[in-house]
This record gives sequence, C-alpha cells and structure tokens, in this order.
Amino acid sequence: MLYIIGLGLGDERDITLKGLDAVKKCEKVYIEVYTSLLSFGLSTDGLSTLEKLYGKPIILADREMVEEKVDNILLEARGSDVAFLVVGDPFGATTHTDLVVRAKTMMVDVKVVHNASVMNAIGICGLQLYRYGETVSIPFFTETWRPDSFYEKIERNRNLGLHTLCLLDIRVKEPTLESLCRGRKQYEPPRFMTINTAIDQLLEVEQKHGKSAYDEDTNCVGFARLGSEDQMIVAGTMRQLCTVNFGEPLHCLVIVGKTHPVEDEMLEFYKIRTENPEQKGNGIA
Amino acid sequence: MLYIIGLGLGDERDITLKGLDAVKKCEKVYIEVYTSLLSFGLSTDGLSTLEKLYGKPIILADREMVEEKVDNILLEARGSDVAFLVVGDPFGATTHTDLVVRAKTMMVDVKVVHNASVMNAIGICGLQLYRYGETVSIPFFTETWRPDSFYEKIERNRNLGLHTLCLLDIRVKEPTLESLCRGRKQYEPPRFMTINTAIDQLLEVEQKHGKSAYDEDTNCVGFARLGSEDQMIVAGTMRQLCTVNFGEPLHCLVIVGKTHPVEDEMLEFYKIRTENPEQKGNGIA
Repeated sequence: MLYIIGLGLGDERDITLKGLDAVKKCEKVYIEVYTSLLSFGLSTDGLSTLEKLYGKPIILADREMVEEKVDNILLEARGSDVAFLVVGDPFGATTHTDLVVRAKTMMVDVKVVHNASVMNAIGICGLQLYRYGETVSIPFFTETWRPDSFYEKIERNRNLGLHTLCLLDIRVKEPTLESLCRGRKQYEPPRFMTINTAIDQLLEVEQKHGKSAYDEDTNCVGFARLGSEDQMIVAGTMRQLCTVNFGEPLHCLVIVGKTHPVEDEMLEFYKIRTENPEQKGNGIA
Repeated sequence: MLYIIGLGLGDERDITLKGLDAVKKCEKVYIEVYTSLLSFGLSTDGLSTLEKLYGKPIILADREMVEEKVDNILLEARGSDVAFLVVGDPFGATTHTDLVVRAKTMMVDVKVVHNASVMNAIGICGLQLYRYGETVSIPFFTETWRPDSFYEKIERNRNLGLHTLCLLDIRVKEPTLESLCRGRKQYEPPRFMTINTAIDQLLEVEQKHGKSAYDEDTNCVGFARLGSEDQMIVAGTMRQLCTVNFGEPLHCLVIVGKTHPVEDEMLEFYKIRTENPEQKGNGIA
C-alpha cells in the first residue's frame, strides 16, 4: 500500500492522527521536497522534527528521485506499506496525480490522507472561497523570458468581481545553465518569489497590456508562511504591500475582487497600519 | 483564547495533532453542527467518538445557539481557553468568518487550526485545483422557488474550459412553515441533496435556458462522503451518474471542463463501470 499523506502547512504537529497512524506502520517513509518548502527543518542533531515525532528515518525525495526512481518506490509499496509525505494536501501539485496514475498502472493500492492546503487555508483572510475565480501562477521573469498568461485570467476574474489567488514561483534544484551545457549536474540556489517581486511583475505586465485589470490602488492580501506560528497576513493596496517586509518564504498573494460586507469587516483586521508597515500580530493566528 | 479548529472530513482521527493539543487544554469544547454533517456519530454509550478521544464533554452548537448565544461563548473565551470545532476547515462557511469578526470586536484572541475541506480534497479525483472556476451552490427546488443563478456561472466556467465544483444543499434544523406561523419552534427533518437530485435540477435549468452550458453527455465526477473510509467517487456523464446510488450524505458534484491528459488518465480510474453502477472500490481511498 502506498500512503500519500498531507502534512498541512505549519510544522510537524499539523499532521492528522490518521496520517500519523499510517506513518507509524509504514516500513519506509519518503518526503517530497521539490514542490513545496518545509518548515520541518533539521535540528542540531541532524534529525528532522518529523523524524523525532515518527521515531524513524525519512528519505528526502527530490525531483530527480521521484522522476527517475519512482518505480522503485512503487515496487516497494507493492510488498509493504510505504508513506509518501507531501506538504499541504496531496493534490496541490500535478506531480502527485501522476504518482497515483503510475501506482494504479502498477497495481499498487493507494490511500490518501488529506490535510489543509494553501487553496483552502487562504480562507482565513475572510474572503469567501467560493468567490474565487481561476488560480494563477506568477513565474520569475528573466531578461528574456517574461510570460504573462496570468494577466488575462486576472482580468477575467476582476471583471466578474471574483478574487484571484496568485501562487508565486518556487525554484528548487533548478540545474544551472552552465551545468546543462556541460552535462554535469549543478544546481542554482533555491529561490522563492516574494510578494514584493510578484507585485512588481504584475504592475509591469499591466503597464504593457494597459487594459486596467488592476493598478497600484487595487486591494490585495499578502500571506507569508500561511498556517505557521509566525504567519503574516496583511491587506492593503498593491502600492502599500510593496513597502512591507514579509520575511521568510513561502509567500502568496490574493487580488481582491468585489467584496461582501462580512468580507470587508474581516479584511479590516488585516489592514496595513501605515505608521508601522512591519506589523506582525493582529490577534488572528 | 478562542480556538477555531478544523476537524477535516472523515472521522475523529482526522483532527491534527495541533488541533488535539488545543482541544485538550480547553476548558470548554463546542462543535458546530449546522453547516456540515458529522461522521462523528454517537456511540452506544451516548458518548461521541470525539468525546472518547478528547476525554471531555462536547457541547453541540446548532444554528440557534451560535446565532443567539455567541456572545456568551465569546465571553467565556475571554477568561479561558474555549475550542470551537468545525467539520472541514474553519473557513468553508461564512458563519465562521462572522464568529471571528465578533470575537475580534470583543477583544478575544483567536487561533485557527486548519484542516482539509471539500474545496481542496476534491483534488483526489485528478482534476487540478487551479483549473476550477467559481464554485456554485445548488439549492433544493420547491414548487414555487427554483432559483438558478448557478446556471450563468457554470456556463461561464464551461466556456473557459474550467471545472465547476457544485456544493449541494443541506437543510438542518429548518423551522417548519407551520411552526413559523404559530411562533413555536418545530423543525423539518434534516435533508441532504443527492447527486441525482442535483443533476435532475441542473438538467431542468438547462432545458429552461437552452444555452447548452452542459447536457446529459457532459462529464462529471460525483463524490459521496469525501474523505471518509467509505467515500465513493465516480466519473461519468450526467446521464450515467443519475443511475448510481451514492448512498449516505454528504454528496458533491464536479462538472468537468477541458481536461489535460494527466487529468484524463486519473479520471479513467474513477470511470463508471456500466456493467456495475453500484461500484465501490477503485483502489484509491
């Protein structure tokens, strides 16, 4: 049996009892480390907080391992119980759908243990989840590569009065251009897009298209480390949020559509306090 | 401190360790029982499975209690730790946003413990969460009340190739018409819309509007008891799904938009087997 287990968004204690039951009976435990960032860091003795909680070693599964050695993992799961841990909910990323498809093709049974993902945890800002349009991804721009297909989607959502969740780019274990040329594997340091960079790129694209999908005065909500003890949620215009230091990753951004009075009341608690843009607590954690 | 704690979708072991930590230190524990159905039933000795797990009594908070006595609960939370349990994630329903707003107004600190909700757990069918348009709600039609504002939204999503999550009506503790007239409180038995009823209503509305937003041959996915041990997920056309007995509530329905090959591969595992519409297992639980 292959158990695909969502870890939720915060720390090691965000796993469900059902997830922990499953991990404890598995012979091998893998953790996926390429679509999301871990708050489950290594401690000084080299054991991660997860390993301490589970009482067994965890094998880090990076993109290379999952893409090239997934059949080995699935063969193991045919004869014994194997856990595959995923930050958030198992189906946030396409790769995990792919894993299930391959498992089924190899006649391996799969059991899924759900958990919170960014797609539903953003509900904490008070904007209703059923008032969101299509989700967009904002990729890192380079000198020569500045794709902006998200613009049309945001424009559409805005015209319909819907909110837009913007997922911000994560680059983990990207091979360097140099290493690709030489055929030897060397990796760029990991990069995580900040809310500030996302807004810069969004405004650049608005200027290029000029269809007034949004502007510097458009209301947004910035989320950093959503679901963690030190999460930071700030509501304000794009211009205001650009002045905020959201700190460590992961960040995501919601572009606010038309709001209901209850949504407004709730957003009010997260409103940027212009006298202190380094705001932290707002009593909702 | 008011802890608003998501219980997830399945049974009592879907709570997170963090959620359980919080419940254990709370002096009072309420559970919200009007926006969602519990799989956390009473056992023969009258104690719910949750009470057994927590080792303390749980107070059922129905709509009346939360709407009329919420200030009492919040006053308690000012002087001590109070848990408010919610099936799914705390922010699936507007009411809980309202609760946070009232808490903040009364200077009560709020801590949220996230969990899986139907909004992200539907990812298990293989349709990518970022390819969904606006979510719609399908209300029970009556002789005289047949609202169909969902039609326009589905049409829009379909034209954009997006999937649509349809949340199906739940009627819990609705006062009878008779009791409203007499001013005495009597309640209708609880009702939960089935996938079959939803499809009937959808097709009726399509016939009325005639804009071909969808038809009997449109691909859908039906979910019953999503996240539970006996969940049932079946993919097929509206006509096919109408022949399936999905059993106990809760049900929800996804109208499939344009699909990516990986999405198709995954849906294939859930496809209705026409020779046996009472299908159960498909090896993904």
